[in-house]
This record gives sequence, C-alpha cells and structure tokens, in this order.
Amino acid sequence: MAFELGSVVSKLQMVSTSDHASVVSMNLFVALLCACIVLGHLLEENRWMNESITALLIGVCTGIVILMFSGGKSSHILVFSEDLFFIYLLPPIIFNAGFQVKKKQFFVNFMTIMLFGAIGTLISCTIITLGATQIFKKLDVGPLELGDYLAIGAIFAATDSVCTLQVLNQDDTPLLYSLVFGEGVVNDATSVVLFNAIQNFDLNHIDPSIAVHFLGNFLYLFITSTMLGVLVNVFLPPIISCMDHPDSDDICLLSAYIIKKLYIGRHSTDREVALMMLMAYLSYMLAELCYLSGILTVFFCGIVMSHYTWHNVTESSRITTKHSFATLSFVFEIFIFLYVGMDALDIEKWKFVSDSPGTSVATSSVLLGLILLARAAFVFPLSFLSNLAKKSSSEKISFREQVIIWWAGLMRGAVSMALAYNQFTMSGHTSLRSNAIMITSTITVVLFSTVVFGLMTKPLIRLLLPHSPNKGSSIITITTDSSPSKSVTVPLLAQESEADIDGGIHRPSSIRALFSTPTHTVHRLWRKFDDSFMRPVFGGRGFVPVEPGSPSERNGHQWR
Amino acid sequence: MAFELGSVVSKLQMVSTSDHASVVSMNLFVALLCACIVLGHLLEENRWMNESITALLIGVCTGIVILMFSGGKSSHILVFSEDLFFIYLLPPIIFNAGFQVKKKQFFVNFMTIMLFGAIGTLISCTIITLGATQIFKKLDVGPLELGDYLAIGAIFAATDSVCTLQVLNQDDTPLLYSLVFGEGVVNDATSVVLFNAIQNFDLNHIDPSIAVHFLGNFLYLFITSTMLGVLVNVFLPPIISCMDHPDSDDICLLSAYIIKKLYIGRHSTDREVALMMLMAYLSYMLAELCYLSGILTVFFCGIVMSHYTWHNVTESSRITTKHSFATLSFVFEIFIFLYVGMDALDIEKWKFVSDSPGTSVATSSVLLGLILLARAAFVFPLSFLSNLAKKSSSEKISFREQVIIWWAGLMRGAVSMALAYNQFTMSGHTSLRSNAIMITSTITVVLFSTVVFGLMTKPLIRLLLPHSPNKGSSIITITTDSSPSKSVTVPLLAQESEADIDGGIHRPSSIRALFSTPTHTVHRLWRKFDDSFMRPVFGGRGFVPVEPGSPSERNGHQWR
Repeated sequence: MAFELGSVVSKLQMVSTSDHASVVSMNLFVALLCACIVLGHLLEENRWMNESITALLIGVCTGIVILMFSGGKSSHILVFSEDLFFIYLLPPIIFNAGFQVKKKQFFVNFMTIMLFGAIGTLISCTIITLGATQIFKKLDVGPLELGDYLAIGAIFAATDSVCTLQVLNQDDTPLLYSLVFGEGVVNDATSVVLFNAIQNFDLNHIDPSIAVHFLGNFLYLFITSTMLGVLVNVFLPPIISCMDHPDSDDICLLSAYIIKKLYIGRHSTDREVALMMLMAYLSYMLAELCYLSGILTVFFCGIVMSHYTWHNVTESSRITTKHSFATLSFVFEIFIFLYVGMDALDIEKWKFVSDSPGTSVATSSVLLGLILLARAAFVFPLSFLSNLAKKSSSEKISFREQVIIWWAGLMRGAVSMALAYNQFTMSGHTSLRSNAIMITSTITVVLFSTVVFGLMTKPLIRLLLPHSPNKGSSIITITTDSSPSKSVTVPLLAQESEADIDGGIHRPSSIRALFSTPTHTVHRLWRKFDDSFMRPVFGGRGFVPVEPGSPSERNGHQWR
Repeated sequence: MAFELGSVVSKLQMVSTSDHASVVSMNLFVALLCACIVLGHLLEENRWMNESITALLIGVCTGIVILMFSGGKSSHILVFSEDLFFIYLLPPIIFNAGFQVKKKQFFVNFMTIMLFGAIGTLISCTIITLGATQIFKKLDVGPLELGDYLAIGAIFAATDSVCTLQVLNQDDTPLLYSLVFGEGVVNDATSVVLFNAIQNFDLNHIDPSIAVHFLGNFLYLFITSTMLGVLVNVFLPPIISCMDHPDSDDICLLSAYIIKKLYIGRHSTDREVALMMLMAYLSYMLAELCYLSGILTVFFCGIVMSHYTWHNVTESSRITTKHSFATLSFVFEIFIFLYVGMDALDIEKWKFVSDSPGTSVATSSVLLGLILLARAAFVFPLSFLSNLAKKSSSEKISFREQVIIWWAGLMRGAVSMALAYNQFTMSGHTSLRSNAIMITSTITVVLFSTVVFGLMTKPLIRLLLPHSPNKGSSIITITTDSSPSKSVTVPLLAQESEADIDGGIHRPSSIRALFSTPTHTVHRLWRKFDDSFMRPVFGGRGFVPVEPGSPSERNGHQWR
C-alpha cells in the first residue's frame, strides 16, 4: 500500500505538468471512494462511526501519507473548488433529500422549521459576530473589518445539511430529522440574504429601515425560490405523460397539448430519467442564475417531483430514479467529506500560522464555543415558543429532544469551508495573516465539529431517547403523555399510505387526531386541494393505474 | 427565445470574470440538452434524422445565435476540453455499449472484428498518410512534418464509436452493429499504439524491425487492456455477493472470505450501484494510468459485468444499473454532439483561414475523399478474406452489407476532434497557419461526415436491406441461401436465453447449427467453460435464484 502510493506520488510529480496528473488523482480518488463505501458498510452497525466520519478520516490519513511521500511539499491532489462543490456536488444531494423526505412530517412542522431556519440563523449569526468582535481583538488575530466579522457570523451560522443527513436517521427519528434538516435548508436561504445584505448595504450607516428591507428580501427570496422549484415540475409531467400515454385526455395543459399532437413514437425509460434529472438540475441552476437560493429551489423541486411526476413515469423509471438519485447523493456525500479531509492538510494554508500556533488554536476554540453558545441561544427559546403554539403535549418538543436538536446542528462542513474560502481569499490577499488564520480556524472547526460532535451524536441519541432505534416507531411515542392522537404516533409512512388508499376519506383515528390537533388543519386543507385539483391534473399516487403484481404494488413500502 | 438568449449573452459578458459565467453556461447547456432530448424523441420515427444530428445542428444554431448577439466576439460558452471528453464523457458511453452489447454476436464475429479493427485501421492510416503527403504539398497548406502527416493518418483513421451507436441499431441489424461498433472499439487500441509509435520511434531511421515491435506492442496492449477490464470484475462480485448473502458458501475467493467474516449489516442497493459504477470507472482510469487503451478495458469490463456481476445484485440494483447506465450514456452522447456543434463556430479558430478559404475547403475535401477511399480499401478486401474462412454462405458478409459497413464507419466525431486538438495545439503553436488549417479542416470533416453521411445512413440501410427494420429478425435471414442453421437466423436474444434455460444442454436446432457452422466452436467451448466453472464461482444467469413474479422474470426480454 505504502509502496504503491509512493510510486503514485512520484509519478504524480513526474508528470504533474501534463494531463496525466489528473488521471492519477482521479484513480486515487475513485479507489478511495470505493474503500470508503466498503469500510462504511462494514462499520454500519458501529455505535460511533458513520460514513462521513470514515470518509473524513480516510481523507486526512491519505493527506498525511501523500505529505510524507512528497517530502512536505503538497498534500492535496485535487484543489478544493467552490464551483465543483456548489455547481456539481451539492445540487444532487439536496435534491435527493427533498425527493426522499417524509413530506407530511416536513409540512406539519413547517412553522417550527421556518422559525429555526430564519429567526434562529439570525440570532446565531448575531451572537457569533458580536462574540468574535469582542474576543478576536484581544487575541491579536490581525486587522479584520466589520464586514469580515459579519461574514464570520454568516459562515459559522450556516448549518451543514449534508452532515445532518449523515447523523440523523429519517426512519428512527423523523421529527428530529425533519426539524434539523428542514432548518438546514431554510438556513441556506437566510444565508444567501445575509451574505447579499453584508456585501450590499452600507455598513457605516445602519438604520432601522435595514431590518424591514432585510425581511422583505428574505420573504421575496424564499417565495420565489420555492415557486421556481415547483414551476419546473409543472412543465415536466405533461411532457412525460404525453410520451407515455399519447392518447390520454386528462392531462391538457398547453405544452402537453402541443407535444401530444406532435407525438409519434414509443415511451422510453432513458428519456424520462434523463429529463427528470436534467429538469431538477436546471431548477438549481436557474435559481443560482437569478441569485436565488438554489438549495431551497432544488429541495422543493425534489418534493414536488416525488409527489407528482414520479407517479407518471413507467415503473422501471420509478425504480431507476429512486435508486440512482439516492446513489448519486450517497457517493457525492462521501466525496465531499473525503475531499474536505484531503484538502485540510494542504501545507500552503498552514505556513502562515506555523509561527503562532497558539493564536490559531485559541481562535478555533473561541469559534467552537461561540457556535455551541449561539445554537443553544436559539434552539431552547424558539422550541419554547413553538411549544406554546401547540395544544397537545405529545406534539411538543421535549427537553431531551431540544438537546438533540441543539447538538445535531452543531456540525460545520463543506458549506462553511466554501463560504470561508469565498470570503477570505476573494480579494487575493490570502497572504494576510488574519485571513490565513481565519481559513485554518475554519478547517479546524470543521474537522473537530464533524469528527467529535459527529461521533458523539449517535451515543447521545441512544442515551436521551433509549427506544428510538426501533425502526418505524415515531420519536413521539416515548414522551410521557399517552395522547389519543394515534395519527402522530403511528409510523408516518403507514399513515400516509392509509390516507392515500382511502382517497382522501379519513379514518376514525385520523378524525380523532384532527380534533385533538388543530395545527394539522393547514396540512389537511392542502391535502383536500391536492386530491381534488392538483393530482388529477399533474398525476400522482392514486391517479395513475398501478399494474397488479408490479414491484411498486408488492413492495410499495420499499419505494416510499 | 431570441430576447432571452440576448439577455443571457449580455449577462455572460457582464459577469464573465466571476464564477457566475459558469452558472450561465451550465443553464444554457442543460436547457439545450433538454431541448435535444424532447426534439430527438419527436423526430424518432423520422426517416433521416437521429439524435446526434439533431444535437449537432442545435449546437451549431446556438453557436450562430450567440455569435450574432455577442457581436462576433465569441460563440462557444464551454471550451472543448480533452480532459472533459476523455476522462468524464467517453468512459460511461463505451462502458454502457459493452454492458448492453449482444455478447454472442460479438464473440462469434470476433476474428472479423479484430481484422477490421487492427489491420483495417493500419491500412486506412497508411493510405490517408500517403495521400495527404502527396496532395497537401501541392495545396500550399504550410510546413507540415512527417510526424504531422502520420498524425493526420491516425486522426482520420479513428472511427467514432459514439457515432456508430447512433446510426446503427443493435436490434435491427445485429451483425452490422457488432462488426462496425466492435471495429471502433478495437480501433481505439490500434490508435493508441499508433500514436505512441509515432511519438516514440525515430522516424528518420525506419527499418523492418519496427513492424515486429509494433505488432508486439499491439498484442501486449490488447491483452493487458482486456485482462484489466476482466480483473476489475473478479473483485467486485464477491464483495457484492457477500454484502447480499452473507451466509452463502459457494463464493469463496480470498477477498470474499475476508469480507464475509467481517460482514455485519444488511445489503444496500445504493452501495451496490455505487460500487459497480465506481469499479467500472476505475478500470478505465487504471488503464489510462498504465498507458493502456481505456476504451478497450472499459468495454470488456462492461461485457463481463453484465455477464456475471449483474446477476449477483438485488433486483432493484439490476433495474437501476441497466437504466442509469443507459441514461448516462444517452445524455453524454447528446452532450458530446451539442458540444462539438457549439465549439465548431468558435471564431478564434477560423480567423487564420479567413484569408484563404479556398485552401481550407480544398483540404477538407481531400481529407473526406481520402477517408472514403481508405475505408473502401480495407472493408471490401478484408470482408473477402473473412468470407473465405466461412463455410456456410449464410454467415458470409454479402456485398450489400459490405457497402453498409463501409458507409456506417465513415463518420468522424469527437474522438477525431480531441486527437486533432491534441496534435495541432500541443506545442502551443496554434498560430501557425498550417496548424490552424488542420484544426478547421478537422471540424469541417466532422460536421460534414456526421450530418451528411449520418443523414444518408438510414435511407441507405432501408434501400439495401429492405427487410431489416423488422425487429428481432437477424440481418442474415435475408441472404439468398436458406441455410439450416436456425441458431444464426433466430433472434440472438431468444437463442441465448434458450441455451441458458437448458443449462448448457443444446437443443436439436443448436446441434444442427453446430455441425453446419464449425466456426462457432470457439464460442461453444467458452460456453462450456463458462457454465461449468466461471458462473458457479462468479455468479451469473442460472446461478442466482430468480424470484417468481419479479420484473426480471416477467419482462426478461426487456432487461436483456
């Protein structure tokens, strides 16, 4: 192994000018990805590890080995590029999260998620900025401007959705998953607004109208991003439906009509899958083009696509999309952690701080402390507020759950790295000592929070919610109150398909739940609208005939 | 449309320094890809068009529109990069071709394919080189060295496998498809050896030992590349099998044993699919790393994977891999043609030839003529040789089929473009007039051959083989002789599954075929070895239980 790597490294140096270097690095990278997948599989049942930590550690180890063999010259084979991350790797991951998310759980908790994602991020950002301003001046970090401090706040207030996906399990803890992951998605919209605000507003003349301006911007961004994600889907189902069933009459939008008239051939799974992938990607890129939140757009695109479009395509397309989106997202997640791990050891970045290691350690510690404090400062008060609005105590977020929400959102990952690179290397003055310290501190925070906080999350959940790993039982069952609202305590999955099979007619248990939990009303109204208008037009479960004996019928639970 | 593009272009110019430019170009590109897919679907039944021509034309039109809106400054949004083509786009296409190829047809015609791919390419290269040397001197092209002429021969002797995939249909004309596409794959190995030979050998001292050296190199490259593609698969099935069936005992290689002992968790479709994709990609990259023919390696990797590994994985993995490989390949093929189309209009390249358009047109015409002549010079004699070795006249390649083989391999595509860029811009002297002329001539040849020759291929097949579009009937049925070898005339698909269901015991019709067609013996021996040794160890059809009522049983023909 060591010998092989040595020869690879020497080869790399030999041919570093030609394009053979990229072949070598791709080889190493793909081999490492395979290793991560196999190792991650073997460690799956481990109490502590998860795939992201495995990949991160493998990345760091590889970095060390390369550093040793190249004689301390270079450790990273691929240079971290924001483009690669934001244009290619992130969209499939977030799209898949939207595609596979338990929609009901997400929309029932919508207000809480918005509260955490928008207000929470603002609180977090403010506390980190204020804290950094006060403490960094005493630490001799170097000359940082007000804009830099605000950027630090925004960088470290950005929850990493990818980390959350790795740490929390949607089947074991659906409520916590939807809250923390949903917060991460909304958080992105807030971060975009924050970053724009920081770069556009005149920071020397702060007046109260900025708050109004800011709120307006946020609402505009949130609504337009969501609508864009939904709109992309409006064009897709008619096209695909017409490819499949050229003689069906119930799908009659204008575009559908035109294509239906032109239609000649047979349907094709490959075309359907390709169109679904490309349209989802297009939604992300369109959002980025219009300076909206691509993450929010592609997330809602995933939700809508799995709700309508997915039911219109052929069965093999359904199986293929389901698994290929999941596979893509799975590989890209591992890729990102491997990448961050390998990039962390880059010797260039550590050169400037080697003369004052104390300052770097102190900065990282201060930032970690601020992150812990800032997250605590909004999770507990906002959970209290959210609980106030809920009547049934079974719906309230228990204190133990609040602790897990606080802890599970502490990890900082590739998003923070990318934002830090953007802010502190943008004007080309990485040579400034303060900027170099901020970059290395960010790397330290990312590595420490992912590995240490990540390792402790699984045991923490096991400790605080001893019964949660029983698959299929909602987290809420373990709260002390034995509420009659069965609809919340049964696995959400079963409940969703129940309602679908009934075709909108709710069973007694659901009606009981309706009376005891009035906050469900918004979701119920949407349901009605969906059943009577949206699904007949755009297609969806129950409005596309299910072939008897097909896998989607037999293994229905598997594809949900 | 025009308005939108105009604003896109102006935006592009405005922010061309930031990474927003890549967002804009990705948007345009993804939207164009979607348009190509929908248009290609609509034009599917058209007599003349195919998807590659549609994409190429859309690319050229987009290039013209951008050229107009940017005021003649720039037409291409993405710069053609060899890395992008050879490292990312080509491997999935060739892998998928191997994965979906009708293996029996390929191996039965193996000797003919080798003849065409190796000897044919050499003949073709020699004729083009000699022709170019003689004619270009009279055309005032500029100073070209002997190495350049040899490179021109190699560039234009390279059949484009991707074009072949688009023009010939595996179901309609299996023999022609396997011959022309197989030739293209073997051709790549020959081209690699040729290019290396041209760059390494001392061209001033040509002696007969070079021929021996060359032959040795070719055989070494062919065998090692093939073995690498097969070897990658040896490690894969045990890993996957152990993930799936940890308690099965029939798979007992060392690696399998280790993993089996370590095995804990449940199987995962996502991991299986990810591993299959990554291992296939790794085979290509390893081949490139060792300066072998990546195309040959990944092609055989696809063949072996579909023969063994594919039968070991779960059913949803099988459906997912089948369709996601096909989708990826489909999208990438369109991507390449769109790309070539958009790149062709790049104004930089045409600047140097604008003062002497006559020379450029003459060069292109000469090259096209040489390609036509060189291909005719090896297809007809080698077909004659191949026919001599065959006893049954039903197996011989008829003259009409020879004409189609000649015509269908005339198209030059992205491979030629990439090789031309490599040769004529490598030393950074694109400013040389002769190099500029060679680049533009290559573009002209690629555009002309793909569009004109491509458009005429479908009608030509219809004209020469009037019955071929009947799905499932082999091309050989239309030859005059009514041979008793039913096994060749029945659809290959049915025959293959027949033999599989019998578990190696051949039915009367197959035995008859055996006596009348002794050239099948190699394939039959392999079959025996496969049934008695390979498949029990590595898994394969018949050695993995088929779930009753599963889609792979019900729609068996669909996944073959």
